[in-house]
Amino acid sequence: MIDVYSTATPNGHKVHIMLEETGLPYRVHHIDIGAGDQFKPDFLAISPNNKIPAIVDADGMDGKPISLFESGAILVYLASKTGAFLGRSDRDKFTTLQWLMFQMGGVGPMLGQAHHFRIYAPEKIEYAVNRYTNEAKRLYGVIDKQVAKEGYLAGSEYTIADIATFPWLRSWKNQGVDIEEFPDLKRWFDEIAARPAVQRGVEVLANLRKPITDDKARDVLFGAGQYAKR
Amino acid sequence: MIDVYSTATPNGHKVHIMLEETGLPYRVHHIDIGAGDQFKPDFLAISPNNKIPAIVDADGMDGKPISLFESGAILVYLASKTGAFLGRSDRDKFTTLQWLMFQMGGVGPMLGQAHHFRIYAPEKIEYAVNRYTNEAKRLYGVIDKQVAKEGYLAGSEYTIADIATFPWLRSWKNQGVDIEEFPDLKRWFDEIAARPAVQRGVEVLANLRKPITDDKARDVLFGAGQYAKR
Repeated sequence: MIDVYSTATPNGHKVHIMLEETGLPYRVHHIDIGAGDQFKPDFLAISPNNKIPAIVDADGMDGKPISLFESGAILVYLASKTGAFLGRSDRDKFTTLQWLMFQMGGVGPMLGQAHHFRIYAPEKIEYAVNRYTNEAKRLYGVIDKQVAKEGYLAGSEYTIADIATFPWLRSWKNQGVDIEEFPDLKRWFDEIAARPAVQRGVEVLANLRKPITDDKARDVLFGAGQYAKR
Repeated sequence: MIDVYSTATPNGHKVHIMLEETGLPYRVHHIDIGAGDQFKPDFLAISPNNKIPAIVDADGMDGKPISLFESGAILVYLASKTGAFLGRSDRDKFTTLQWLMFQMGGVGPMLGQAHHFRIYAPEKIEYAVNRYTNEAKRLYGVIDKQVAKEGYLAGSEYTIADIATFPWLRSWKNQGVDIEEFPDLKRWFDEIAARPAVQRGVEVLANLRKPITDDKARDVLFGAGQYAKR
C-alpha cells in the first residue's frame, strides 16, 4: 500500500494520475495547505522542503518502507516499480528523463510564476506578468513542436514526461495562453485528458479542494516565496 | 568521446564538474549565448528547448550515439554510465534522485529568478526582489538542515545531487544571501569547493566567459523570459 500526502494541485495530480494509470493500491492523505499541514513535524519528516506531494511505500525496498518527496522522483520510482511509462530501452528511459527534467526545471516553475504574477500577487506588476506569460508561450511552443514531431514528449509512447506536463497545462487560461494557437499540443492534450485514468487522477482530491485564502499557502502551492513578505 | 555544448553558467558547470569527477574523455564546444549560438539549427536539433548544456556521447547505446539535454538528465546519464555518484543501493539512487529534483525544480529556477530581479532586470521591482530573495534564504535553510543531518544532500556520500546544487550556490552574494548564516551549508560548500575535480570543472569555460550584454542572452542563462518584452 502506498500512502500519498498531497493536495489538488498540478504536482499532486501528477502522482494521482500515475497511481491510477498503474493500478497500484494507494490511499491519499490530504495535506491542507490552508491549515498549515505542510509545517507539521510528521510531514516535514518525509518532505524536508515542506512541499507536496510525498509518498511512503510500505513495500519499499530491502524489506523496509521508502519515503520520497519531489513529484519527479516519485514518478520515476513508480515507473521503475511497475515497469510502466518510462520507455522500453535504456535509450528511451533517458529520453523520458530529459523531458521529465524539462517539466521539472522549466514548465512547472515558470508556469507557477505566471500563475503567481497573473492571479495571486497583490499588485499587478506588468514587467513580471509579461516575463512569465511570454515564457509560458515559449514553453507551449516547444511542447507543440515536440509532440508534432514525435506524438508524445519522449517519442511515440505515452510516458511519465507527459503525465508530469499535462496537469500544468490544464490552467492555460490562467497562464495567459490560448491553447488553440498550439494545435499539435491541443491534440496531445485532448488525448491525454480523455484517458479514464487521467480523469480519475485529477478527480482524486477535487472534493477536498477549498479556495486558498492564505497568502503563504498560495506560495507553497505555486512553488516560490513561501516566506515572501508582502 | 563526449561532446559537450555548454557555457560558463551553473547548469553548464554541473556537467563539467561531473566529467572531471568521473574522468570521462570529453571536449567542450562553447555555445556563445551573446552571439545567439543557442538559436542555430544544429544546436536546436540536440536541445529543442534552446538551452545549454547538451551532450552527444559517441559511444552512446546499442552501438549508436546518444544526445541529451537538461543538466539533470545528463548527470543521471553520466552517473549511470560510470556507476559513480548516484548512490550504491536502489534506495540510495532514489534518495539521490529526489534531491537532484529538488535542485532542478527549486534551487535552480528560484535562484535564477533571484539573479534576474536582483541583478539583471532593467527596473528594480521590490516585490519580486523580496519574493525571490526570501525564497533563496528558505532554500539555503533547507540545504543547511539536510547537510547538518546527513553530511551531504542525499546521505553520507557525495552524489550528483551535490554536484547539481553546488554551482548555483557559488553566487550567494548575488542572491542576497549571507552564507555565514548557514554554517553547516558552508562546511559542505567549502569541502566541495576544495575538490580538485570541482575546481577544474568550474574553470573549464572560465576563459571563454564574456560579459553578457544582450538581454535575451541573459534570460537564456537564467532560465526564463527568453522572449520577455522590456
